[in-house]
Amino acid sequence: FSQEEEKKTDEIKDFYLKKGKGFEFHFDQDRYMFYIDFRGQFRASYPHNNFPTSEDDFSDDDINMGISRARIKFGGYVGEPGFNFYLEQDLRGGNLLDFRAQIEKLSYLKFRVGQWKARYSRERVISSGKQTGLERSLINRIFTIDRQQGVSLYGNLDGGGAANFNYWAEILTGSGRGGSVGDDDNLMYMMRLQWNPNGKELGFSGSDLEFHEKFVSSVAIAGVTNTSKYTRFSTSGGGQLYGYEPGVDGQYKVDQFLFETAFKYRGLSFDQELHYKNIDDKVNLEETLLIGNYFQVGYFFHYLFDKFPKPLEVFARQAFFDPDSNISGNNNYEYTFGLNWFFKGHKNKLTIDYSYLKFNQFKIEDNTDHMVRIQWDISIF
Amino acid sequence: FSQEEEKKTDEIKDFYLKKGKGFEFHFDQDRYMFYIDFRGQFRASYPHNNFPTSEDDFSDDDINMGISRARIKFGGYVGEPGFNFYLEQDLRGGNLLDFRAQIEKLSYLKFRVGQWKARYSRERVISSGKQTGLERSLINRIFTIDRQQGVSLYGNLDGGGAANFNYWAEILTGSGRGGSVGDDDNLMYMMRLQWNPNGKELGFSGSDLEFHEKFVSSVAIAGVTNTSKYTRFSTSGGGQLYGYEPGVDGQYKVDQFLFETAFKYRGLSFDQELHYKNIDDKVNLEETLLIGNYFQVGYFFHYLFDKFPKPLEVFARQAFFDPDSNISGNNNYEYTFGLNWFFKGHKNKLTIDYSYLKFNQFKIEDNTDHMVRIQWDISIF
Amino acid sequence: FSQEEEKKTDEIKDFYLKKGKGFEFHFDQDRYMFYIDFRGQFRASYPHNNFPTSEDDFSDDDINMGISRARIKFGGYVGEPGFNFYLEQDLRGGNLLDFRAQIEKLSYLKFRVGQWKARYSRERVISSGKQTGLERSLINRIFTIDRQQGVSLYGNLDGGGAANFNYWAEILTGSGRGGSVGDDDNLMYMMRLQWNPNGKELGFSGSDLEFHEKFVSSVAIAGVTNTSKYTRFSTSGGGQLYGYEPGVDGQYKVDQFLFETAFKYRGLSFDQELHYKNIDDKVNLEETLLIGNYFQVGYFFHYLFDKFPKPLEVFARQAFFDPDSNISGNNNYEYTFGLNWFFKGHKNKLTIDYSYLKFNQFKIEDNTDHMVRIQWDISIF
Repeated sequence: FSQEEEKKTDEIKDFYLKKGKGFEFHFDQDRYMFYIDFRGQFRASYPHNNFPTSEDDFSDDDINMGISRARIKFGGYVGEPGFNFYLEQDLRGGNLLDFRAQIEKLSYLKFRVGQWKARYSRERVISSGKQTGLERSLINRIFTIDRQQGVSLYGNLDGGGAANFNYWAEILTGSGRGGSVGDDDNLMYMMRLQWNPNGKELGFSGSDLEFHEKFVSSVAIAGVTNTSKYTRFSTSGGGQLYGYEPGVDGQYKVDQFLFETAFKYRGLSFDQELHYKNIDDKVNLEETLLIGNYFQVGYFFHYLFDKFPKPLEVFARQAFFDPDSNISGNNNYEYTFGLNWFFKGHKNKLTIDYSYLKFNQFKIEDNTDHMVRIQWDISIF
Repeated sequence: FSQEEEKKTDEIKDFYLKKGKGFEFHFDQDRYMFYIDFRGQFRASYPHNNFPTSEDDFSDDDINMGISRARIKFGGYVGEPGFNFYLEQDLRGGNLLDFRAQIEKLSYLKFRVGQWKARYSRERVISSGKQTGLERSLINRIFTIDRQQGVSLYGNLDGGGAANFNYWAEILTGSGRGGSVGDDDNLMYMMRLQWNPNGKELGFSGSDLEFHEKFVSSVAIAGVTNTSKYTRFSTSGGGQLYGYEPGVDGQYKVDQFLFETAFKYRGLSFDQELHYKNIDDKVNLEETLLIGNYFQVGYFFHYLFDKFPKPLEVFARQAFFDPDSNISGNNNYEYTFGLNWFFKGHKNKLTIDYSYLKFNQFKIEDNTDHMVRIQWDISIF
Repeated sequence: FSQEEEKKTDEIKDFYLKKGKGFEFHFDQDRYMFYIDFRGQFRASYPHNNFPTSEDDFSDDDINMGISRARIKFGGYVGEPGFNFYLEQDLRGGNLLDFRAQIEKLSYLKFRVGQWKARYSRERVISSGKQTGLERSLINRIFTIDRQQGVSLYGNLDGGGAANFNYWAEILTGSGRGGSVGDDDNLMYMMRLQWNPNGKELGFSGSDLEFHEKFVSSVAIAGVTNTSKYTRFSTSGGGQLYGYEPGVDGQYKVDQFLFETAFKYRGLSFDQELHYKNIDDKVNLEETLLIGNYFQVGYFFHYLFDKFPKPLEVFARQAFFDPDSNISGNNNYEYTFGLNWFFKGHKNKLTIDYSYLKFNQFKIEDNTDHMVRIQWDISIF
């Protein structure tokens, strides 16, 4: 009887389906795995959908409503978990976001090739479905290097206790999402070093949903250098920041540096990033230093007042952006307050936020604006 | 022994695959379901692929052959069938068609958010793979409000017997497929009320494949109002009807009304739609009333003459479109006859149709044309 | 006990998952099958990613790095294996590549409808993941008719022994990938006849990975005629060869002929194609004959010298292209040498190649160039 029992288990283990990282399919005694996941983000907002990027944008008031993100994700492993792949498609715009193959057999030395969000800043790396806020901060668009194609080595160096570090070294084309052609002989080089003082990784997700009894934090520095015809990168690829003309090959040498902190503790989460970005325009022979910083805190007040609903998180964010450190009085500011209601963690949540904007960059008389947004974000995983 | 039997059943029921709504995958004791479906439509036609929309189109003769529709569909539920999602991608043009999340726990009050075919007219709502005809009628392009983003409440109100109603109330951006930005403060508002006099829903599919022994019918009215820069909507988004210039924000206030009937009975199916559309051009200060109507019947003559092949349906359609009710002699007419051979219901069918066109709108001498088409439509589900 | 055993087997056979042609899902006692497969190709190259197609291209030097191909494939059968479908999507560019339904119940008469790579030349038909070389030869872009929409009859005629033939007869729109509209009344007609002298098919894949103990070869001729506004076809659709102006309907009558040989034997693989292409420009009243040929050999030296690593293949290719047979001294030449390291056959391989180019077509002084590339190609199947 017991023999039969075993046999049955074997047969059943040969393949199985599981709701795990999305919808998981396991093959051939778990030597192969494949999963599919979906994410939808629905948003209504007024008078903007996100921070204005030009005067016209600032003045134009629209009701926005509908799909803000529609994603399909595939991943899995081949032969063993260490040989894995991942792809993410933006269904709304029809763009391939991630497409990468990874060899992750040693925790301290992993290899990646393809296209992905460069592991530069915590705010950008955290998925838009796992953020504390409804959307990323004012400074994200300015300083992110976003998705790039290339190769990377990365890993975790654990010397025990506080001697715990993550590193990422990436060589990228520096021509943005979808760009496999470099700028002549120029490539983008990125390095990030993250210290995990509490001996364990904080992980790339916002809000202390897990209620960390023990303080867990992360302190990181990162730098990146790139020469290309672009001054900024976003999901739509390479482009120009406000005030910069369309570039030619080799026009903009951009050097960036970042100092970042974050922690989670007993329902409280904290994130901060300080960015420097130097744009050296080789055509117009102008050099500009851009500076930005943001602070964000989220807290589940339920842990302070028992009567406060458990799924409700309150968050606040302040960010400033100085588009040219040599000019004063041209800074932009963001003050955002919001609420998250977590039906099922980050998998199913409702967020509402309010932003007060003070934009001095566009040199317009009425330099303040408001923005109200409500959002429902759902995913399988 | 019986105890073991039960155990095995449990283990097997934990997950299973089934050919149902496409390829179905059931997870975790049916608490999660995911399906994938494909549809291909292959067409050859001459001299047009569909009704001409301009003089040039009318005069140009081409052999068309190949893929007319290529679709992939994903759907499923999360936690329980009432929490479900659906997405449909047009692979041919690379467009996201449907992307929606639904809460359907109460039959009389359901909720939907995302992008979908507005539940306005029966002809448009019926999938192109479940129509009686080879393609939609002449008036569809003129009057459809097509796919939009937004939110909707809908349900069935059953008071017993003939007191059976379906309703759909939708608030949409009114900027067409892919449009999540409204037109300044303007949104689209749509309402449809459908009476099911025979106490049950007719369902959104053409041809009486099920052979309804009892007469089942549907009578509906619907209205929609929208202000935007568009005068028509199609799969490619917002656009302009023949004779209308590209618009600016707020230029076109469009009000539409529809009266629709349909029934199925012993192999016979009938569909009719009468449309009114008033376009108020706020820039040129012109108001135009457009009127259109179509009738369609399909019949399986097998039920009349035993020798007539059972899978063969004969259908006919007449449609007229008046582009301006103030001007006479400018109407367009369609007379279409066709045959369906159902290899496996709507999942696998061959259709051939012939259309005689009389178009007075374009003010050209030779105002009549013909169109012959043959089509094979196949899908998993 | 044995009765129970059978019962269990039945239940298990009702559905199952298998790593076969990608990730396979079998439904309802194998009456339905569905599979999903992925392929990634990552490449670094300098100073070109592929053969230059214009003077500017020839002079511009760029480091290229990243994704060269990203594909998702779906296929399966419905009811029985003879009724099957296949679709392939290019995720990088967002293009639908293949979308076809096939009836393959008789080996000598099969039917296909949709869009696919026309079965014209062996080099183009072999998937970019199953080639001997890192990329196709210099002449592929000139002579391929690439993907088209239409219908096809094909099959294998086996008279025993050397009397073994494959044929493909295709009627296509001749307007390239994505084109379902013909050029007025003109269509493309293609015919390929392949002789399998050794009584069995060689199959469309490069490199003798299977170590054919017996010599297996293929000799083919093919012809195609098309009138359209295009002089070449590629994954991006119809376009123009260097030196040809954008066309109008019916401008270019193109007639092509091909003679092709290939064999595999004891670790050695050989491929050759000779192409003729006559372009009759009906607008400028000019006729041009283009000629091209390529030879390619691949060999696993392990079978000659035991110490030579078994997974290592050496390959070489020579190709020439004469853009106008009436003009001398304008030929382009390619000399390519390379190495394949097969980690797991064509599913996981690393390729490096070096090309020496001598291009006389562009009439520039420095008419020689070099190209170095390294590539990793991985797929599930």
